[in-house]
This record gives sequence, structure tokens and C-alpha cells, in this order.
Amino acid sequence: MSHTGLTEIPARHGKAVRLAKDGKLKLINTHGTQVVDTWAFNADDLHEFMSMEHTRPHIGRIFPKVRDIMYTNKRRPILTFIEDTSPGIHDTVIAACDRYRYKFLNYEGYHDNCTDNLFAGMAELGLTPPEVPQPLNMWMNIPVDKDGNIQWLAPVSKPGDYVLLRAEMDVVMAFSACPQDILPINGVACKPVGAQFQVI
Amino acid sequence: MSHTGLTEIPARHGKAVRLAKDGKLKLINTHGTQVVDTWAFNADDLHEFMSMEHTRPHIGRIFPKVRDIMYTNKRRPILTFIEDTSPGIHDTVIAACDRYRYKFLNYEGYHDNCTDNLFAGMAELGLTPPEVPQPLNMWMNIPVDKDGNIQWLAPVSKPGDYVLLRAEMDVVMAFSACPQDILPINGVACKPVGAQFQVI
Repeated sequence: MSHTGLTEIPARHGKAVRLAKDGKLKLINTHGTQVVDTWAFNADDLHEFMSMEHTRPHIGRIFPKVRDIMYTNKRRPILTFIEDTSPGIHDTVIAACDRYRYKFLNYEGYHDNCTDNLFAGMAELGLTPPEVPQPLNMWMNIPVDKDGNIQWLAPVSKPGDYVLLRAEMDVVMAFSACPQDILPINGVACKPVGAQFQVI
Repeated sequence: MSHTGLTEIPARHGKAVRLAKDGKLKLINTHGTQVVDTWAFNADDLHEFMSMEHTRPHIGRIFPKVRDIMYTNKRRPILTFIEDTSPGIHDTVIAACDRYRYKFLNYEGYHDNCTDNLFAGMAELGLTPPEVPQPLNMWMNIPVDKDGNIQWLAPVSKPGDYVLLRAEMDVVMAFSACPQDILPINGVACKPVGAQFQVI
């Protein structure tokens, strides 16, 4: 952590952090075009975690917005969206990318991916997630039309946009600065650039 | 299994069955109004399973349709939608109901639920799922508008409507005849009625 209290999520990498109940975390899209796959686990029981499919029925939407409470797979509040200076376009329906995804995209050899980044970020804290929940894909722009068709678009966030989250229990949060450089999901330049967070 | 080859999924209960690669299973909405939460696991490794979040990017939609291939969390084909005589309204965004869900709906005491039904159905085969994947909620009618808002509506299927699925690997399939009787998700009468399947 730097003297400014900002922690880097380096481009193409993962990072995890503990956050006590009522603590706040500001996740910053430093360059404006970085998708950040975001997870939260109950610090006392990693088998309980923020779950998109359990949150959707409670917020009545597939996209979370400011004031929404995110729920765990035991339907307990785990995070609240306090502020969002971006246009509020985030995704909950697309799995974290993984080594298999890049094979489908005809990439030869190993490609950094959000699933391995989750494990690497948690490993720095000595932790292993028991499964890979559907992430909250911050700033990922996946419009869904009324027939359910999805599109893959570049983020609409600006440099410095942030979301402020409050922990509703002691949590371990994990982030992956998505390394997708084949589809324009991290901007039309297809250049993953990293992000930052700050515990408040 | 009866002499007709039809297996009952009793109202409010779960059932599981093994299906060999290339085998077909017809899932029948006998009464037309029953939502059936559906899971498929790799028979050789239950940690690999049909995953809605991994399927969506491959089919380009949040709702599966005839000819769609469903993928596992390792992005391998596991099931193909061969036929669907219903209007094709199925859900992939709402978690299986669970004991916690019914507490939110102010139900006192234990309520049957799809999550426990998954475990009960698999237990009859001597199996324990290592996690509870987002189910494919057959006939569940959850329209999503372009702003991501969801609605909870009754099924639009008719009695006898069926979907025909082909296994793309040796699988264990599990079904729960959803016991939801507080919201009209199993029809406006809020009466779970059960369903049937047939291995072909």
C-alpha cells in the first residue's frame, strides 16, 4: 500500500484485501477503461460469498445500482453500493474469464485470466476460495436486450470514476484487473491497464 | 420408473438420474405450470457442471433456445437443447430457492426448497454436489427489460410441453419441482404440481 493509501491492482493481475464490517472500500477505475472482476467472501467462512444469482431477486434487477445491497448465497447482506461516480454500467451475467475461455478465442499457450487471478490474489493472504462465484464485473458493459441477447462493449466509465462499497460483515474482497485483450471489453484499444483501490 | 418409462418428479421434491453421453432426456411439464430447476454434473467429476454464467457468453443470450449447447465451468459442452415444444421461456438468472429465501418471504418454519431438493435427489444416487450451481430454471418466466429490471410471472407453457436434451458427456442430471407457493412462479394458483422425465 502506498503512502496515499492507494493499492494497485496491476494490469492483468489479481489482488485481495480484508475489510472489516462497516469498513468502506473505494474501487477506482484509474484509466477509465478497466473492467475489474470483484468478489467478496465472508471472512469467517469462505463458503459464504457474494452471489449474483442470490442478489438479483432481492434487488429486482440484473445490474446493481447505488443503494443496492448485495447478498450472499445465504441471503445475508455482504456489501452495499454507497456511491458510484460512473454511469453505473456493471455486469453480473458473464463468468470470470479463464484458461478455457482463451482457448475458445484461439489464443495459443497460457493467457492471464480472472479466475486464476482470484486464486492468486487470495493466495497472497494465505487463502483459497472454495469455488469461483459469478463475479460482479465492475464497469463491464454487457447490454442485455428484451430477448435476452447480449453484446460485448467497451466500458463507458471515465478515468478516475469510482464505486464506494461498504462491508456488511467482515469480508475478504478479491479483484482481478481483467486481462482480456482480444475482445474490446477493456476498451477499444484492447489494452488492460489496471486499477486501484483504497480502504477508507 | 413406471412401465411407460416415465419418472415422476413429485411436487415439491427433487430427483436425479444418470444419463450416458449421447443419451436423451425428455423433461415434461405434465401440468403446464411447474418450474423445474435443472442441473447437470459431469458424472466422472462433480466439480465440473453445467454453468449458466459460462454458457451465456457462448450462446450470446441469457436465455437458452433450441440448438443451443450448454457449457460447463470448464467450457466443455454438457447438454444440447434438441427440442422444445413450449414457447421457450426459461430462466438462468435466479438462484435456486432455499431455506433463507422463504424466511425473506415471511414463511415460518421449514419450507421445501430447490436447493435442499438438489441434495436430496443426488443423495438417492449416493452423490453429494460439491456446490450449488445456478440452475437452468426450466419454464420459469422472469422477463428482463433493457434496464435489467426483472419480473416474476407465471409460466407460459401448456400441459405436456417438453424439452428434449442430449447429453454431450456422461452426466448426472438433477431436477427440483420448485415448491414455490408464495409467488406465482408455478402458476397463478401458487400450487406446485410436479413434473416427469423420460430417458430415451
